[in-house]
Amino acid sequence: MHRKIYIENMPLEEARQLWMNHLDSMGFCTPPVEDIKTESALNRISSKAIHAQRSSPHYQAAAMDGIAVRAAITFGATERSPVIISPDQYLEVDTGDYVPNDYDAVIMIEDVNFENDYATIINPAVPWQHIRSIGEDMVAQDLIIPSYIRIGPFEQACLITAGVDEIEVVKQPVIAIIPTGTELVDYGTDSMAPGEIVESNSHMLSALCQQWGAIPFRHSIVRDDRDQIKKAILEMIDQADMIIVCSGSSAGREDYTSAIIDELGQLLVHGLAIRPGKPAILGSIQGKPVIGVPGYPISAQLVFHLFARPALYARQGLSEPDEPSLECQVARKLPSPMGVDEYVYVNCAQIDDRYYAYPLNRGAGVTSSLVKADGFIRIPRGVEGVEAGEQTQVFIHRSRPTIDNTLVCIGSHDLAIDVLADLLQHHHGIRLISSNVGSMGGIMSLRRQETHMAGIHLLDPQTGDYNISYLRRYLPDIKWQLLTLVKRRQGLIVKPGNPLHIEELTDLTRSEVRFINRQKGSGTRVLFDYLLNKQHLNNEDIYGYNHEEYTHLAVAAAVKNDACDVGMGVFASARVLGLDFIPIIEENYELCILPDIIKPAYLQLLIDIIKSQEFAERVASLGGYNLDGSGEIRLISV
Amino acid sequence: MHRKIYIENMPLEEARQLWMNHLDSMGFCTPPVEDIKTESALNRISSKAIHAQRSSPHYQAAAMDGIAVRAAITFGATERSPVIISPDQYLEVDTGDYVPNDYDAVIMIEDVNFENDYATIINPAVPWQHIRSIGEDMVAQDLIIPSYIRIGPFEQACLITAGVDEIEVVKQPVIAIIPTGTELVDYGTDSMAPGEIVESNSHMLSALCQQWGAIPFRHSIVRDDRDQIKKAILEMIDQADMIIVCSGSSAGREDYTSAIIDELGQLLVHGLAIRPGKPAILGSIQGKPVIGVPGYPISAQLVFHLFARPALYARQGLSEPDEPSLECQVARKLPSPMGVDEYVYVNCAQIDDRYYAYPLNRGAGVTSSLVKADGFIRIPRGVEGVEAGEQTQVFIHRSRPTIDNTLVCIGSHDLAIDVLADLLQHHHGIRLISSNVGSMGGIMSLRRQETHMAGIHLLDPQTGDYNISYLRRYLPDIKWQLLTLVKRRQGLIVKPGNPLHIEELTDLTRSEVRFINRQKGSGTRVLFDYLLNKQHLNNEDIYGYNHEEYTHLAVAAAVKNDACDVGMGVFASARVLGLDFIPIIEENYELCILPDIIKPAYLQLLIDIIKSQEFAERVASLGGYNLDGSGEIRLISV
Repeated sequence: MHRKIYIENMPLEEARQLWMNHLDSMGFCTPPVEDIKTESALNRISSKAIHAQRSSPHYQAAAMDGIAVRAAITFGATERSPVIISPDQYLEVDTGDYVPNDYDAVIMIEDVNFENDYATIINPAVPWQHIRSIGEDMVAQDLIIPSYIRIGPFEQACLITAGVDEIEVVKQPVIAIIPTGTELVDYGTDSMAPGEIVESNSHMLSALCQQWGAIPFRHSIVRDDRDQIKKAILEMIDQADMIIVCSGSSAGREDYTSAIIDELGQLLVHGLAIRPGKPAILGSIQGKPVIGVPGYPISAQLVFHLFARPALYARQGLSEPDEPSLECQVARKLPSPMGVDEYVYVNCAQIDDRYYAYPLNRGAGVTSSLVKADGFIRIPRGVEGVEAGEQTQVFIHRSRPTIDNTLVCIGSHDLAIDVLADLLQHHHGIRLISSNVGSMGGIMSLRRQETHMAGIHLLDPQTGDYNISYLRRYLPDIKWQLLTLVKRRQGLIVKPGNPLHIEELTDLTRSEVRFINRQKGSGTRVLFDYLLNKQHLNNEDIYGYNHEEYTHLAVAAAVKNDACDVGMGVFASARVLGLDFIPIIEENYELCILPDIIKPAYLQLLIDIIKSQEFAERVASLGGYNLDGSGEIRLISV
Repeated sequence: MHRKIYIENMPLEEARQLWMNHLDSMGFCTPPVEDIKTESALNRISSKAIHAQRSSPHYQAAAMDGIAVRAAITFGATERSPVIISPDQYLEVDTGDYVPNDYDAVIMIEDVNFENDYATIINPAVPWQHIRSIGEDMVAQDLIIPSYIRIGPFEQACLITAGVDEIEVVKQPVIAIIPTGTELVDYGTDSMAPGEIVESNSHMLSALCQQWGAIPFRHSIVRDDRDQIKKAILEMIDQADMIIVCSGSSAGREDYTSAIIDELGQLLVHGLAIRPGKPAILGSIQGKPVIGVPGYPISAQLVFHLFARPALYARQGLSEPDEPSLECQVARKLPSPMGVDEYVYVNCAQIDDRYYAYPLNRGAGVTSSLVKADGFIRIPRGVEGVEAGEQTQVFIHRSRPTIDNTLVCIGSHDLAIDVLADLLQHHHGIRLISSNVGSMGGIMSLRRQETHMAGIHLLDPQTGDYNISYLRRYLPDIKWQLLTLVKRRQGLIVKPGNPLHIEELTDLTRSEVRFINRQKGSGTRVLFDYLLNKQHLNNEDIYGYNHEEYTHLAVAAAVKNDACDVGMGVFASARVLGLDFIPIIEENYELCILPDIIKPAYLQLLIDIIKSQEFAERVASLGGYNLDGSGEIRLISV
């Protein structure tokens, strides 16, 4: 039962079963309870069935304005022989008023003629007419809510109405979260040395705890020191129901955690056959579950989701809610090793009548993928991956309306696309997701009809025009429209003051100059290669020609941080990071839109925004843009 | 623009448009903003696009443990001519460590042979291998989240990582809620006189405000006094962004509110063509929107949903989220007047491959319908209702997994069904919804195959057996199973001490005895009529024979509250309300189950629970039950 298990690569399902059985055997899944006032019960979980303490209404009530009578005295009333009721035989009542037991019917005020307090009626009353009987809503002892139900606004109101002033609820589990790592610094630290990392995982896990009904308690950052980590765990063990050690990702780091668990309690699992999240640790100390989560944010989140979430739901007497799923076509091939359960985060959108899943950057350190993601695909062990176009189940955490109101723009990157996304979201609740795969990548996505539009700026060296010759060549059979988004200045981005005196492309071949390039297939790369060729320059003479970045801002950041001296990009990205800029060319950045698969209403909203004053002002303020013709359709395919 | 509009029956759409235009013209839909610390930003709404303040990583980082080198010095390395790197030419690095700019590649530790600090390699390094470039996750100035996005755990972590320590968010709107009504008493009041009502609406609306991102402020109860209501409104007007007056439902009551709005500001609408919710009031005072919501809880909630919700979303710069909907077959005809938009609350469940909507009690005072409801059907103006079996759109607020994991039991009421529901919910997360329409109603639902099972106890006077002859007659072509739930004692429920000395059925014909009956079609009514008949008693001699209640508890409550002296029902309902009981007969209460439309796994769980010790103990503790044979299948149709 309590044998020590140490494995390096335990299959996920085995680990989950082992973990839940272990929790169960410790009594962790029997929720502790407490009595609280009903007015504080919002969002809490009932721990037993709750019955009404009082009927509602708790008295016989008039359902109309009128007079209360004993029905028997009205029997036989007709227009020809009305019944006259003397003042001592009736009671005037308003809606909601108490109808004493001496009366068993209410006659509507409209049906009564009064004369000197004598009431005349011409129709008999049916017994119990227009009376709300006691308990019409709820009868005392009626079951109001079963056990283990979350108390929402309606449940709370109903409990108050039913005279339930105090209820027994599940205690909220308290989760201690201990961030460890000598390289970590606290959020809010102004200047960070290279190698220092701002600690964010504990904040993310705390927020997730709250979503799952638990109360997080964050310990301060603990250095990589076995004694200090041990001290922190022991400090927390009495106050918390579960302990999370954020282990850091450096090699050997997590061994502290597993060794401490092994020393103080029971080490259950160290190492899972999942990706990301392999170095996860599971165990318990003094009857409290302990999870060691890896340092990379995506891994941390995934391990927490897979092991802390079911534990917290069980601790509250709840079944872990199923994640809603959506059948999607995967836009890109996803290879995956046979031996692991792999989780790939994706965006989802509806293109025409199909749903597509767009895989996000799979790096475990890429926090921004979590923000962008609508859900994930699970590639199970024993499966080698997913082919492009394959139908796959996506487990979504974003709301369906958000997914359904999404426009997809795959292709080149430009800051104006961010402005467009922001305005579409704000004014119309439409989400624009963009994927930076370069202009040629965008055209290929259009060709496969897996995007509503693409941002492209491909110079045709033959004609000097942009985009059209490429579209004619690669999209011969598809209807498309070419819409001007912006014209923008491309050039060389250099350090402030241009210390290396870079003035033209030939300077890039100087031995002391470190260049950074854009990826193959990007419009900027096409332009750069075209310019090199025109000037008969050899790319082998440029140091860093093969060092690639994927966006204008990434190029500028590399210059700014002295990872290199120069790169090619748009003026706005140089300016936003305070760099110098040597202009080379003004180019057309256009949106190629597929009118058959974009909703016409959305297309119109898109055009309206691009033509708007607000768009023009925000883009102009970035610098280096020319908005002549923005929002105009330059060409429609035949 | 500001003309006063007073109508009694304004169509909903017109009122909604008028309201939103009015809010817009007052500037209500321009969200005020504030700067807050990112650590407090969870669940808040960004008020502008947020860009990264720092790249992540903000330095060139090793992606592996190994040595950092300048790639150029490794070129040409092979097994036959290894390259030997001197200590001043490399730097040992762990994953995550800073790689200074003097180096442009990391060689994995496994690929290096050390000898006296000299490193030997046999493969050349590719420039930038195993290096995480600056901004791999996010580049400074990258757009992290657009404006008007709710900040969740991942967004918060990402902001922290990106060095965004403070952000501009939408201020949470403050909503003042003023309950008015002389009949209202505060929750927690121990004894209430007939005619007094516990005030619950303000708590419900407060909780809804919180769900929609606003901060509620509840005023204490104000008596029905024009000056006091006016004073309360003026007290709140400076502190709140919007004012809700819970108007009470008595005739004429809401005129105070509308008159005050008219006096102090602008009265926009009084009276809507909706049901429930007709007496709604809309207006504004000193530029603050004011809503008068009706007193009945369902009406209050509906008016709040229709008018406060869109206003609060607009105030936060958000589009009002669409409610998810589900196509359901309506189980019962729903007549509706042509002139109104009517909202009918329903339960939903999946029966076989169809979804059914089961209308709940339509009384505007029935709070428990709100607790039970999974959503609502909207019957638009100009439509006369919905036919039984018609496909209708249900707007659901309950999660789909909850709806999908639902068992339906329509038929007779028994307290053991409540115990069953509680245990199914707790142990298996399966919801059991039951509808009390009597045994015959249950059989009709089985016949239409719109329920998984029915609770029935129909005595066959010919055979003395229960249920079987009815099932054979009404379900000749359907497969069914008859499962024993409980045996239970039926009898007469009388006041404590039996003051009227009721001993047998003939006593019910005495003139001073007030009886209460069960509805036609209920098993208890069938039993009662059978017993009357057997004893040659005439129902016209029984005062209250036509006064019907729908459950055992409702009958007991009527006796308890002196609405009558005696009724027929089960022992447990007498006992739970502290009443006396004169036993008459023990009867079989059985579940008739349709095995073709219930999931086999669910049927097994159901049987397991009915056979469990826990079920037996909880039912036995109610009193009057016999659990011999509980969970046994007594008969299966051929």
